[in-house]
Amino acid sequence: MSVLITGSIALDTVKTPLEEHHDLLGGSASYAGVAAGFFTHVNLVGIVGNDFPRPYLELYQKHRINLDGLEIANGKTFRWSGEYEWDMNNRRTLSTELNVFEQFRPALPEQYRATPYVFLANIAPELQLHVLDQMQRPRFVVADTMDLWIETAREPLLQLLPRIDCFVMNESEARQLTRQTNLIKAGRMALGWGPKHVVIKKGEHGCLLFGDGHVFSAPAYPLEDLHDPTGAGDCFAGGFTGYLASVNRVDGDTLRNAVIYGSVIASFNVESFSLGRLQTLTQHDIIQRYEIFRVMSQFVAG
Amino acid sequence: MSVLITGSIALDTVKTPLEEHHDLLGGSASYAGVAAGFFTHVNLVGIVGNDFPRPYLELYQKHRINLDGLEIANGKTFRWSGEYEWDMNNRRTLSTELNVFEQFRPALPEQYRATPYVFLANIAPELQLHVLDQMQRPRFVVADTMDLWIETAREPLLQLLPRIDCFVMNESEARQLTRQTNLIKAGRMALGWGPKHVVIKKGEHGCLLFGDGHVFSAPAYPLEDLHDPTGAGDCFAGGFTGYLASVNRVDGDTLRNAVIYGSVIASFNVESFSLGRLQTLTQHDIIQRYEIFRVMSQFVAG
Repeated sequence: MSVLITGSIALDTVKTPLEEHHDLLGGSASYAGVAAGFFTHVNLVGIVGNDFPRPYLELYQKHRINLDGLEIANGKTFRWSGEYEWDMNNRRTLSTELNVFEQFRPALPEQYRATPYVFLANIAPELQLHVLDQMQRPRFVVADTMDLWIETAREPLLQLLPRIDCFVMNESEARQLTRQTNLIKAGRMALGWGPKHVVIKKGEHGCLLFGDGHVFSAPAYPLEDLHDPTGAGDCFAGGFTGYLASVNRVDGDTLRNAVIYGSVIASFNVESFSLGRLQTLTQHDIIQRYEIFRVMSQFVAG
Repeated sequence: MSVLITGSIALDTVKTPLEEHHDLLGGSASYAGVAAGFFTHVNLVGIVGNDFPRPYLELYQKHRINLDGLEIANGKTFRWSGEYEWDMNNRRTLSTELNVFEQFRPALPEQYRATPYVFLANIAPELQLHVLDQMQRPRFVVADTMDLWIETAREPLLQLLPRIDCFVMNESEARQLTRQTNLIKAGRMALGWGPKHVVIKKGEHGCLLFGDGHVFSAPAYPLEDLHDPTGAGDCFAGGFTGYLASVNRVDGDTLRNAVIYGSVIASFNVESFSLGRLQTLTQHDIIQRYEIFRVMSQFVAG
C-alpha cells in the first residue's frame, strides 16, 4: 500500500558547533517522504517556489516519491535556519521565511484521495484537517505537531486528535500539550483525547508507544556521533508510517516493528546533514540496524 | 550464593511536595540490602549509633540480612534530610549529620571475607577500597558512587574501577565523571577505565548496560505515581547484585536479567516512602512486574 505525506518543504541553513551548511533540502515532508520511500510508494503534498533546485526534485523521485501533489508556485521556497548548541540537544531558530508556504492550501489530486495510509507531518493543524477532509476513508492516519501549534492552535489540534490513529510528539511537546511532567501520564492523557495510539519520542532515550492498554518502550540506537539532529522526528514518523503501509497491517506487533523501523531510519539520518546519509542507505543497512535494536533490547527469562 | 553489601545506614527526613516523614530507615546499604534480600542472603557491613531503632534491626533480619558486620557505636546514627521538587526529578539536601558515620572504618568479620558477590554501595571510594582489600577473591564486585566523590575523591575512585566487575552510575554522574554529554560515549569511556561492565541509570528512561562490546537498553517501569524516589538507585544495584548471586552466573544473558530484576525492585521502592513498599513485596509481585518489563520491551520481527 502507498502512503500520502503532507508537510513543509524547506531550504534549510543549519549550524552546528562544527559545521554550517546552506540551502539544504529540509522540511518535515522531505524527511518523512524520503524515510517512507524506503518501504513503499509515497504521494507527496507540498509547496515550493520556482527557485527550488531541480536536483532536489530528482532526489524525491529517486526515493519513490510521486510529485503530482507538489505545487510549484511563483516566489521563493520556505526557508528555515537554525543553530544547535554544543551538546546537540537544544536548537535555536535563527530565522524563518515562510515565502510561498504562506499560501499553502492544497487541493489533493484525484488519484491521491484513496491512499490508505496517511502521515500528516508538522504543519498547522488547520491544514492537517484540510488535507484529511479530502481523503476517502484512509486505513491509518498518523499526525505530528510542534510547540508552536500547541501554543497557538490548540483548538484545531484537539479537533484533529479523534480523527487520527496515531499521534506523534516529542517529550517536551507531550509535556506542553498535557501539562503533565510524567510522560506516562502525558501519553495516557493524550490517548484520552481520541487517537488510538500515541508515540512520545525521547531522542537519545528512545520512544514510548501507548495504546490498547499497553506501553511499548523502544530503545534509541547507541549513537556516539550525531552530526545534525534536524529531521530525526520526521524520519521516524515517515519510516513508521511507510513500514505500516508496506505490510498493510496495524496490529500491536506490527506497530512495535514500525516504531523500530522508524527509529532505524531516524538513527541513520542524524549521521549527516540534511538527507545526506539517506542518499546512500541500503535495505541491507536497515536490516542490520534493525537487528542491533533487537539485540539491544531483548532479554530471555532466566 | 550470598552477597556482601557495605554502604551508609541513615535515619532520613524526606520532604516531597505532598508529604514529610522523619527518621525513616535510609542509607544506601539499607536500600540495597533489603533489595538484595529478595534474592539471597546478605552480609551487611555498616555502622549505626546506639539511638538506632530496634524495629529497624528486626526489619533487616526479616529480609535475610546478617548483622554480624553491623557496628553499633556510641553516639548518634548518621542523619540525612532532603526535599524533592514538585516534579520529583530534582532533590535538594537540607542537612547531613555524619555522627558515628565519621568513624566508619569497618573490619570485616572473618566469616564475611569469602562472600562471592559484593556490592560496594555509595560511600567514599577509600572505604570501598578498604572493604574490598579484606575480601578473598570475590567472584563479582559491583560498585556505586555519587557526585560528591567524583568531585572530591576522583583519584581513589579511578583506582577502584579496575578492581570491580560492574560500575553503576546515574546519568548526571556519568556525565560528570567522563565529561561527555553523550551517554554512549560516557559509558564506553568508563569501561575503558577498567570495570568489565558499566550501568548508567536514567530514572524514568530506564538504564543502559555496557560491556562485552554490547549495549543493553532496559526500559523503566511505566510509573504514574512516584511517592519517594529516595533509594531507587540503591535498590536497583542491590537487586541486580542479589539476583546475580542467587543464580551464581555472570554471563551476558544473566546480567540483562539482573538489570531487569534490579529495575523491578527499584520501581516498587519509589511507590512509598523509605522501605515501606518493600515490606509487603512478594515474590509473586516481582515475577508479575518482571513480566510487564518483558512485554514492554519485546518485539517480534515481522
